[in-house]
Amino acid sequence: MTYSTVSINTPPPYLTLACNEKLPTVLSIAGTDPSGGAGIEADVKTITAHRCYAMTCITALTAQTPVKVYNISNTPKEVVSQILDANLQDMKCDVIKTGMLTAAAIEVLHEKLVQLGDKRPKLVIDPVLVATSGSSLAGKDVASLITEKIAPFADILTPNIPECFMLLGEKRKLNEVQDIFKVAKDLAETTKCSNILVKGGHIPWNDENGKYITDVLYLGAEQKFITFRGNFVNTTHTHGTGCTLASAIASNMARGYTLPQSVYGGIEYVQNAIAIGCDVTKKFVKDNGPINHVYAVEIPLEKMLSDECFTASDVVPEEPIVNGVDKIPGGSFFEYLVNHPKVKPHWDSYVNHEFVQKVADGTLERKKFQFFIEQDYLYLINYARISCIAGSKAPSLEDLEKELVIVECVRNGLSQHEKRLREEFGVEGPNYLQNIQRGPALRAYCRYFNDVARRGNWQELVIALNPCLMGYGYALTKIKGKVTAAEGSLYHEWCETYSSSWCHEAMAEGEKLLNRILETYPPEQLDTLVTIYAEVCELESNFWTAALEYDEL
Amino acid sequence: MTYSTVSINTPPPYLTLACNEKLPTVLSIAGTDPSGGAGIEADVKTITAHRCYAMTCITALTAQTPVKVYNISNTPKEVVSQILDANLQDMKCDVIKTGMLTAAAIEVLHEKLVQLGDKRPKLVIDPVLVATSGSSLAGKDVASLITEKIAPFADILTPNIPECFMLLGEKRKLNEVQDIFKVAKDLAETTKCSNILVKGGHIPWNDENGKYITDVLYLGAEQKFITFRGNFVNTTHTHGTGCTLASAIASNMARGYTLPQSVYGGIEYVQNAIAIGCDVTKKFVKDNGPINHVYAVEIPLEKMLSDECFTASDVVPEEPIVNGVDKIPGGSFFEYLVNHPKVKPHWDSYVNHEFVQKVADGTLERKKFQFFIEQDYLYLINYARISCIAGSKAPSLEDLEKELVIVECVRNGLSQHEKRLREEFGVEGPNYLQNIQRGPALRAYCRYFNDVARRGNWQELVIALNPCLMGYGYALTKIKGKVTAAEGSLYHEWCETYSSSWCHEAMAEGEKLLNRILETYPPEQLDTLVTIYAEVCELESNFWTAALEYDEL
Repeated sequence: MTYSTVSINTPPPYLTLACNEKLPTVLSIAGTDPSGGAGIEADVKTITAHRCYAMTCITALTAQTPVKVYNISNTPKEVVSQILDANLQDMKCDVIKTGMLTAAAIEVLHEKLVQLGDKRPKLVIDPVLVATSGSSLAGKDVASLITEKIAPFADILTPNIPECFMLLGEKRKLNEVQDIFKVAKDLAETTKCSNILVKGGHIPWNDENGKYITDVLYLGAEQKFITFRGNFVNTTHTHGTGCTLASAIASNMARGYTLPQSVYGGIEYVQNAIAIGCDVTKKFVKDNGPINHVYAVEIPLEKMLSDECFTASDVVPEEPIVNGVDKIPGGSFFEYLVNHPKVKPHWDSYVNHEFVQKVADGTLERKKFQFFIEQDYLYLINYARISCIAGSKAPSLEDLEKELVIVECVRNGLSQHEKRLREEFGVEGPNYLQNIQRGPALRAYCRYFNDVARRGNWQELVIALNPCLMGYGYALTKIKGKVTAAEGSLYHEWCETYSSSWCHEAMAEGEKLLNRILETYPPEQLDTLVTIYAEVCELESNFWTAALEYDEL
Repeated sequence: MTYSTVSINTPPPYLTLACNEKLPTVLSIAGTDPSGGAGIEADVKTITAHRCYAMTCITALTAQTPVKVYNISNTPKEVVSQILDANLQDMKCDVIKTGMLTAAAIEVLHEKLVQLGDKRPKLVIDPVLVATSGSSLAGKDVASLITEKIAPFADILTPNIPECFMLLGEKRKLNEVQDIFKVAKDLAETTKCSNILVKGGHIPWNDENGKYITDVLYLGAEQKFITFRGNFVNTTHTHGTGCTLASAIASNMARGYTLPQSVYGGIEYVQNAIAIGCDVTKKFVKDNGPINHVYAVEIPLEKMLSDECFTASDVVPEEPIVNGVDKIPGGSFFEYLVNHPKVKPHWDSYVNHEFVQKVADGTLERKKFQFFIEQDYLYLINYARISCIAGSKAPSLEDLEKELVIVECVRNGLSQHEKRLREEFGVEGPNYLQNIQRGPALRAYCRYFNDVARRGNWQELVIALNPCLMGYGYALTKIKGKVTAAEGSLYHEWCETYSSSWCHEAMAEGEKLLNRILETYPPEQLDTLVTIYAEVCELESNFWTAALEYDEL
């Protein structure tokens, strides 16, 4: 027999900000989906992922998976009534969100809403009539009961387009976004709910950039339309998007955000959950897989193990680090990365970019260069922040300090940019710098950084930060001596910066750092690092392309 | 009519690490708690908070709140069977976790487990028979059905002490922890489940440090006992702890952690959830409130709004900052803080600490001073990391750089400590430093820092980091000229460090930084900053007390 004792960390951390936290509460009234992707299960997941407190009232027990609905048993009216009574009587309830409703549940809810009068919680109605996949979920009677009995109490209604038609009682042709505006406005009149979100996932639009979808929010009181425009994600893994969106909106509202803010946050959350997806169905299930509700949630035990103060070595023995150095022929991780088939095309188009050539021969329009400098200025500020986070995650003090040296370099880069903007483009004062608009290429790049910083480890973050340093040095050193822009000119000076001996030293440090990453990263996961390197090279390349294509209106 | 268009950020961030993520899956078989604190709702919340994918099989619909159970309707056997069939057939299932079971559900589960043979998911059984509050939830027949039909298939059983007695069929006297070991071992024999976690929440123990609880894990194969010892939290808000713990263990197991790791992570999660608590019941509900499942979850929309690349100003207009400077008489936030009634007692016992006096007059035992230097060495490393995070959250580059200056100072402090350890205590090499054990005072302090860094904003973090700088300077400057330890001695030199002009300059910077915080923080939330300052002063004071009381074994 062996015995050991493990101390649980006490006191728990940081009670100050959270002790007896007043959690915003959302009550979901809906049917179940035991397979977890939709229904009340998706609601509880979404509300939880928004750090709100979820309550439930189950209107029907289903046996279903993404494959099919095997069975539905409606909850008896008196049980629904008891559950609603109990929750509304004993619990705080900020927002009610409804999903799949039975006629009985609508009646019960109607009664409670009337009883509560002014003390009614906010109400988000997802009028579940037609599934995202297109199949009908409820008859016409439910549609008219929703319109009659509960919609007039709602703060917002979130139908998809087929549901709009059912609620309006007619099909319409939708040729342009304006037609959806009309649908939203008419629906507000029909249902007496003044705010309508028409979800456009069923009808992608097209323009020169490809397919996109629009969700239209109509705000009745202000007579205002807000269109949310997102890329069309080509996937059938959209099981549960409707429930999830309405729950996300309800959660944001419970947190006190305005309706447009809540809708915006909800749409982004769902778009990410779709694009990230998850793999939880058996192999033979091809379609209609669930979205990923938890992509941004931190794993508690993983956090604990990476905690400086974690000492329960009894239960968590330290694992020896196996390193991947042997896997790399020649021993330079940098060479391995840039020659990797996944990376090479992106690296090549990055370091041979037309933008650099046009700067070097002096033919780039000055407006485009100014745009580049301004975007790069904002990029560098973000780079400094992310380097700080990399420092905080570094395995040793020496590694931490390397990140701080990088922040110092970034500071120099920023001063040079400020000088260029002042002296060459006549730009004055901090207000100008603060008001620079971020272009799409910059936004995509920074969001990538921010997300790796949030969810990745030190190694992944260092890999993400590396292409910027190496690529600029590489691209400009390649054309050293071939720069034909006038000596002393802005373009010539910029080219010199990245082919100077100072830059070469920084590159040598960068190469060493990559090898250090290789020593500390699980070799079987190297592909993750390769993919990040490839994606960041592509983001770099897009960044220069955006400058090249910049066309002031 | 006004129209505006908001772009949804695409591509979504960082798909590399997460695209079609293979989420670990946990299927919970249990009854509902519509009020959200226990039952299947608590399970889905817990599994979600562990970034796993939750599935459900509802054995009974209840109408209940923390006040009482108003109604229970058992799910018909054939519906349970259909749901389990559907999930096991179409979905991946890594771990099954059971909560409140009916006789019918046990029968169905037994059949499936036999059918699945070697392809059985892992199984965590929380034998719900007696609620945390003490009331009985199931008859003897359920206890014997669990023992007979499903326990032999389980990887772990997690009974509380009354449940142990019901499963063993006898009550026992428990006078010492050894008696619980015996219970666990006997229960493993009775149930044929080789791993037993006996939850000790019902019987707090006592020693000189106060009340504590122990959970005992018996690992049958290794014949090993692990005792998890945690502070007793004096609260009745423990509704749902049993469900939550079993779900957290199941989630950790689904993630691939070992059983002891999974249990450790689960206990910490529940302890934090209890201590942090949440306020979601109506005022008249005094007892049995739910725990906080979501304390560590980040709020998606809040993250978006603090994102450098957030540009949807259409829906999120910038709010003007109202500052709290006028609230502070005299204008020094530092003076306000240290004289605040919440802070003053802790500040006073910190800056007048006996430890400092004993160093100054040379009477402190050298072993105690060495312990202090070693603990402080580890503390400073963590301080450097946290300063990096503060830098990453700073509102401007200037603020960011101030944090880096602090990291440089910390680096100097570490070098001085290394020198002291080497020259005065004969300590050699990096191995020695790496193997220093963290004492409880250091751990409590660092965990506090880490959690503020994770969940707090820049201002809160700066406030947490400030007392260390100001207090050392203040305490040592106070006794400047009264140091009687021999000149040139270690103690004398240490006292000098914190009363030097260099330190005074740093303190002046620290004071300025506090005023900057005041300018940027919502004045109505100032109390949060005051509380943090008070708590950190107390942690500082405890840190010195720990050195004073250090007694090498």
